[in-house]
Amino acid sequence: MESLPDNQLEMMLHPVGVVKSDIKTPELKANANDIELQTQKEQLRENHQAIKNNICELVIFPKFESLLDGIEDFSHILVLYWPHLIDPERRNLQKVHPMGRKDMPIKGIFSTCSPARPNPILVSAVELVDRNRNILRVKGFEAVDNSPVVDIKPYSTSYYRVDDPIVPEWMAQIHSETQNLE
Amino acid sequence: MESLPDNQLEMMLHPVGVVKSDIKTPELKANANDIELQTQKEQLRENHQAIKNNICELVIFPKFESLLDGIEDFSHILVLYWPHLIDPERRNLQKVHPMGRKDMPIKGIFSTCSPARPNPILVSAVELVDRNRNILRVKGFEAVDNSPVVDIKPYSTSYYRVDDPIVPEWMAQIHSETQNLE
Repeated sequence: MESLPDNQLEMMLHPVGVVKSDIKTPELKANANDIELQTQKEQLRENHQAIKNNICELVIFPKFESLLDGIEDFSHILVLYWPHLIDPERRNLQKVHPMGRKDMPIKGIFSTCSPARPNPILVSAVELVDRNRNILRVKGFEAVDNSPVVDIKPYSTSYYRVDDPIVPEWMAQIHSETQNLE
Repeated sequence: MESLPDNQLEMMLHPVGVVKSDIKTPELKANANDIELQTQKEQLRENHQAIKNNICELVIFPKFESLLDGIEDFSHILVLYWPHLIDPERRNLQKVHPMGRKDMPIKGIFSTCSPARPNPILVSAVELVDRNRNILRVKGFEAVDNSPVVDIKPYSTSYYRVDDPIVPEWMAQIHSETQNLE
């Protein structure tokens, strides 16, 4: 490892696996000024319902297989992954229309779930369907095919669950437009 | 940027801010074979209650201030950070006793919340108390002082909330030993 000044850190990530999914193209694309929704607004709900039921594989590299021991005892896991189709230059974006929706107010990147961000690590809590050695099958994961997996964590309520968070109007609206009225 | 082979990615992180907290020493330490709890088991509940009420600052670097626009409309945020006091060599650990507890069964790193892991990015959902320009005050965050902040995300229930996850006996036990019986 290179030596670094005292107050600096080498924060380099190495993929621990890869996503194998039927989802081949991302819903959002980033350009120099904003993110763009690639789906018609009318199709959003349908797409999100399809994703919710979609089962895909996280193929963990064999050298990390033993790190999965015990994961099968959890119903849900947290997956950290890298949106590899986003141009690295888009890490400089500062403000965007949430979900690429021009009818939504423009917001700072840290207030949105934009995949284009300074450190583009995406986080998703998903249902763990089963484990077969180094392969995890998960349900409801929206990552595109071949996304590098950065980390797998057990879903711990004390770290990740908030029962009644307050979200702004715009996010509540996006949410209501993508969920089924159950 | 260096050019990389087609199938490789540069997944380098740059801190976007730093944690300012009264918590100066981590609860867990990693050695070559395991993680070690630095707190007496009897004190765990007390410590966790103290952390739950602890308010600390996330000082976002000024050049990222505009990325925070709109974050004050959320009651909770997701913070991604780097456990900088963990020796980088500990990224090779494969199995540990959860929470450094020798009375717990040994598990693969991906089944635990160990800070020593191949890509040591820790994730925590915390209450956002307020924002003053580039400084966020948050409640219930256990990161130690000076931890680099990697990302800030709004707490979105669709990505992060699982209502009734199943967890194994050992995690339920750790959880019950650190929570107040409310």
